[in-house]
Amino acid sequence: MPDLNYVFCPRSVAVVGASNKEGSVGRSLIENLKAFGGPVYPVNPKDDTVAGLPAYSSLSAIGQPLDLVVIAIPAAAVPSVLAEGGELGVKGAVVISAGFKETGRADLEDELKEICRRYDIALIGPNCLGIINPALSLNASFAAASPAAGRVAFVSQSGAICTAVIDSAKELGLGFSKFMSVGNKAATDELDILSYLAADKDTDIIAVYAEQIGRPEELMAQARALSAAGKPVIVLKSGRSSAGASASASHTGALAGNDAAYEALFRQAGIIRADKTEDLFDYARIFSCNRPAPAKRVAIITNAGGPGVIAIDALEKEGLQPAKLSAASEAALSAALPPAANVHNPIDVLGDARADRYFAALETALSDEGVDAAILILTPQSTTEIKATAEAAINAKNKYGKPLAAVFMGEELVRDASREMNAGGLAAYSFPEDAIRSLSVLNSFHESLSAPAWQAMPRFEDVDREAVAAIFASAKAKGQTAFPEASALAVLRAYRLPVLASKIAHSAEEAAGLAEEIGGKIVMKIVSPDILHKSDAGGIMLGVKPEEASLKYEELVSRVAANRPEAKIEGVLMVEMIEDAGTEMILGSVKDPGLGNLIMVGLGGIFVELFQDVAFGLNPLSRSDIERMLSSLKAKKLLDGARGRAKADYDALLDAIGRLAQLLRDFPEISELDINPLLVLEEGKGAKALDARILLS
Amino acid sequence: MPDLNYVFCPRSVAVVGASNKEGSVGRSLIENLKAFGGPVYPVNPKDDTVAGLPAYSSLSAIGQPLDLVVIAIPAAAVPSVLAEGGELGVKGAVVISAGFKETGRADLEDELKEICRRYDIALIGPNCLGIINPALSLNASFAAASPAAGRVAFVSQSGAICTAVIDSAKELGLGFSKFMSVGNKAATDELDILSYLAADKDTDIIAVYAEQIGRPEELMAQARALSAAGKPVIVLKSGRSSAGASASASHTGALAGNDAAYEALFRQAGIIRADKTEDLFDYARIFSCNRPAPAKRVAIITNAGGPGVIAIDALEKEGLQPAKLSAASEAALSAALPPAANVHNPIDVLGDARADRYFAALETALSDEGVDAAILILTPQSTTEIKATAEAAINAKNKYGKPLAAVFMGEELVRDASREMNAGGLAAYSFPEDAIRSLSVLNSFHESLSAPAWQAMPRFEDVDREAVAAIFASAKAKGQTAFPEASALAVLRAYRLPVLASKIAHSAEEAAGLAEEIGGKIVMKIVSPDILHKSDAGGIMLGVKPEEASLKYEELVSRVAANRPEAKIEGVLMVEMIEDAGTEMILGSVKDPGLGNLIMVGLGGIFVELFQDVAFGLNPLSRSDIERMLSSLKAKKLLDGARGRAKADYDALLDAIGRLAQLLRDFPEISELDINPLLVLEEGKGAKALDARILLS
Repeated sequence: MPDLNYVFCPRSVAVVGASNKEGSVGRSLIENLKAFGGPVYPVNPKDDTVAGLPAYSSLSAIGQPLDLVVIAIPAAAVPSVLAEGGELGVKGAVVISAGFKETGRADLEDELKEICRRYDIALIGPNCLGIINPALSLNASFAAASPAAGRVAFVSQSGAICTAVIDSAKELGLGFSKFMSVGNKAATDELDILSYLAADKDTDIIAVYAEQIGRPEELMAQARALSAAGKPVIVLKSGRSSAGASASASHTGALAGNDAAYEALFRQAGIIRADKTEDLFDYARIFSCNRPAPAKRVAIITNAGGPGVIAIDALEKEGLQPAKLSAASEAALSAALPPAANVHNPIDVLGDARADRYFAALETALSDEGVDAAILILTPQSTTEIKATAEAAINAKNKYGKPLAAVFMGEELVRDASREMNAGGLAAYSFPEDAIRSLSVLNSFHESLSAPAWQAMPRFEDVDREAVAAIFASAKAKGQTAFPEASALAVLRAYRLPVLASKIAHSAEEAAGLAEEIGGKIVMKIVSPDILHKSDAGGIMLGVKPEEASLKYEELVSRVAANRPEAKIEGVLMVEMIEDAGTEMILGSVKDPGLGNLIMVGLGGIFVELFQDVAFGLNPLSRSDIERMLSSLKAKKLLDGARGRAKADYDALLDAIGRLAQLLRDFPEISELDINPLLVLEEGKGAKALDARILLS
Repeated sequence: MPDLNYVFCPRSVAVVGASNKEGSVGRSLIENLKAFGGPVYPVNPKDDTVAGLPAYSSLSAIGQPLDLVVIAIPAAAVPSVLAEGGELGVKGAVVISAGFKETGRADLEDELKEICRRYDIALIGPNCLGIINPALSLNASFAAASPAAGRVAFVSQSGAICTAVIDSAKELGLGFSKFMSVGNKAATDELDILSYLAADKDTDIIAVYAEQIGRPEELMAQARALSAAGKPVIVLKSGRSSAGASASASHTGALAGNDAAYEALFRQAGIIRADKTEDLFDYARIFSCNRPAPAKRVAIITNAGGPGVIAIDALEKEGLQPAKLSAASEAALSAALPPAANVHNPIDVLGDARADRYFAALETALSDEGVDAAILILTPQSTTEIKATAEAAINAKNKYGKPLAAVFMGEELVRDASREMNAGGLAAYSFPEDAIRSLSVLNSFHESLSAPAWQAMPRFEDVDREAVAAIFASAKAKGQTAFPEASALAVLRAYRLPVLASKIAHSAEEAAGLAEEIGGKIVMKIVSPDILHKSDAGGIMLGVKPEEASLKYEELVSRVAANRPEAKIEGVLMVEMIEDAGTEMILGSVKDPGLGNLIMVGLGGIFVELFQDVAFGLNPLSRSDIERMLSSLKAKKLLDGARGRAKADYDALLDAIGRLAQLLRDFPEISELDINPLLVLEEGKGAKALDARILLS
């Protein structure tokens, strides 16, 4: 694997396509690179100097060791320059140039990949804005400005989003460890970058804008490792809707993913999903300003009742709680605040509160053991000390170290104070709702740190993989892609998924034997290619006991023969009869082109469509992934025995999902699969698949 | 009704409590009022002048006609000053002072109300920031600044929210027709203000922050009238959550409403609900900058692919559509834009687009008949002409008049341009999602304008009000508040709600007669105070035909007598037997302390709790209100005949809800009511209430 350190921490940089032309990309690149501490070599065949630096006619002409080459020349010329660099020992490259896969020239992009492989070059791009390492004053991009150094790594599939982030960063107090526009991701994708950032001591937080993501299994593993190490990964993924997906395809040449699959991916990977653009900024800031810590029980400190009520509403909505202040805290507040103040949470320091009153309230709240975190709300009233309150808040945060966010409501009067707080490590928001949603994300991340380590479901060793392989091979030989029910059930049986026992008897004697074998009561159904509606033809008998089976066989056959003399009777299907009504669930899978088999579980029967009470997961699944899928279902209460029902066999359902997941992993040719219904019986009695459908690709 | 024009458009203003003390409320009031065109009289018993104006020792000492008195003195002294004003012919008052109902002095507040009634004074407050009419330079508040004039009326139960709005207004380009902090709403509540604003020619948009709202029926009517007249009413209501409600109570002394009731109120009133604080600003701005117009089919014009994809996602999420551009438009775009540009929606004018290219794309998009509205997205790239693009966008909007919103992403580079657009009547947002949500609200409001006029369900004249009154009177006489099932069903029957026919037979002969009367098959159930589980005692017979009823009566009674010789048998309940499984629905009502009877309909049976598939409405209901309740249910599909079921008797269900609503209106003493299940049969076969429960207050 090429080393991205050559890209982000090079000792020297060459720019091919460096230009003196005002407003050109090649000029911007050189101007941005001038601040870099190491040597910078413009390559320009025509000019002697570029932006005041001596220029070279080619990479070879430089004659010095080169770590990183930045390339901004027409696409067709890029491969030869990259290869030239490779020959010279270049190990890092950023290709700014567009005109590759995104415009139909996948061939050119493949050439780049091949060259990188050959020379072990780490490549960012092509078709990107470039990369920035602020701590080294390395700005190898054509962005109009450089962001400050900090602990956030920003990774974007869109260069334009990068420019917007840079323009917002100062106001928001965001600083970056690494900043990159990844473009077409020819040789370096999000997974490579996450792996690099995992080892990067300067990075605490990873924020990503992506339109499509590949290598889901490795990505989930890497993201989980990052989270477990206390580095949150926040992703804004666009192309969610079907309409958005097509726009994404036309833009990046990428196949956009199905959103349910991405939801599952992010959840299983422990990735924090930004639902909208603003969330990406909001979440990055709360993690920038606060180490992961509990933030469940929140104190609200406000100089106005209205925003306090709004904040309490938001806490409930986001799954946090208004902290219950101790009697000692309330007494301290009573002593420190005027009589009209509210010393219960939300703490109302009143409209005429100056900075000292805010500070006193913050001190009391943040030192209360029942308070995990606090929100400070300020509205600009006539005697409000905006700047001094901001400073008091920064001091209180530094003193107590608990998560704190500020909400200074307004614009003109409060903007400078908000900027000062952001710069001082105290995340400031414009509205209580945004601050509280961010705090909730911080709290959830902290909670996830104490979850047990992820572990894939162990393989079931009792499956008969060869049997399934044979069924599929035979289907393929016949050119079949869809299976009759019986074959689909045979596939399930081979993986020991619970299937209703059923066999065809061709004689009364055989019926008796099969009934004995199946055990319990039997449903007998006539088998005839000429009879569509079995019950209309009198072709079904319920509740047949094994000892009656022989007699009933004769009775059934002669009854059908009488009713439908023209029908060819092939035998009688002997089916295990289930007397427990059970809970009808559905298990299924559909293949996402980028992310693999998307596994579904939900309430079956007529309610599948009506309530769409389903949950999704991606392979590989852990036991707790499956448990989380099931817990997210409203039908979980039915399984748990709501309304006086018997508790359902939860373990059998969990086991069935695990076996299904393994089947899908073992046979990637399965493109769709439905088990509907899967009847989940009473606890201890298992489950039974009544019907199944499998499609092969 | 006192005339609020004396408050908002006075010819003269006196300030009782005017003060020279720096930083005092009385000083701020006078400073703010200095700009007013009419005479301003400070009243201060000690000083000769206040802030340079001649001061008077009392209202009476002024000796000039007075329209408005602003009062900022200790609460206890307010009533006598207000009465003094009343004697002098004052018709408008703003009481800034706190210390009334919110601190337990409801008596003082009642005094104010009484004085206002006596002298016909329009009163705002007490316990408020004051009021502002920017067009008259009338700032009768102690806010730190004055907002600009414009078309938005802002009404706030929180003074602090007012200060935040004023501080944000300039940046956001928001101007106000009337601006008010309503405080305790002693004599003037939201309804009074809406009524006043309905006739106010300067007001196009009404934005409200409220913690509790009263007089729901009149308020709904007034809000509907405003909407129908093209004036949107936008409300941010806090105290949504149970926790928030208690904070609200402690803050304002108001009883906070149940949120389901408020949701119903807003929906039925056509009020646009701001889900979070930012929405209030966002929605006010889209209506400020655009007359109500269709905005369903939206063109996205962007200089970057990523934000374009995000925008397309947001359109789908908000129920809007990416506009399909005409072939002519796409040809025009191809001619105007570079070859690499995307001429399909989202239109990508490319990263190097200058203002002219944006303008060309806007012209094409806005003149396309398939485009209702557009979103212009700009990311600050190296050659982007930020200011010129803003101006081009304002021009394009003025030229074509279609709804347009701008998203200039970033902070430092784009802020001035965003401010300029806001000031120029083009709403600018920081993120695509916010712009598109606002556009969606504009579109919905426009769609609502073409809805037929609201009309209450006509009264059902075939009800027997006296019968119900008698049942309730008898219950009250006995001190009963909960009813036995039979009485509850009798109440429903009196309002001709469909109830399963059932009567008690005391002899075989009577059984035969009742069976004849009920018709069809009968379920017979033993009636005995000693038998809890009728079926265990053999006390139920199903499917009895009328001609068998006499015989079966004897059989049932002797069977139960044999099984339970000790039980006293009172007779046999003869119940109509329903063979159609139907759809089990639930109808119910619970009383909201502030908003009246909240009427509920939903899927009944075991799924009530599991899926909570229910909808709420408030009296009075129109037919379309009920239809909207039903349409919002997932169970609607079941009623419509999903999955091969017969279509249910929708009209019978609708009729039942209407009759229930009338029952609740006629008898306000009903505090809770449940009809569960209401079996809705096949179309044309009606519905049947199987069980009911009524609680009186």
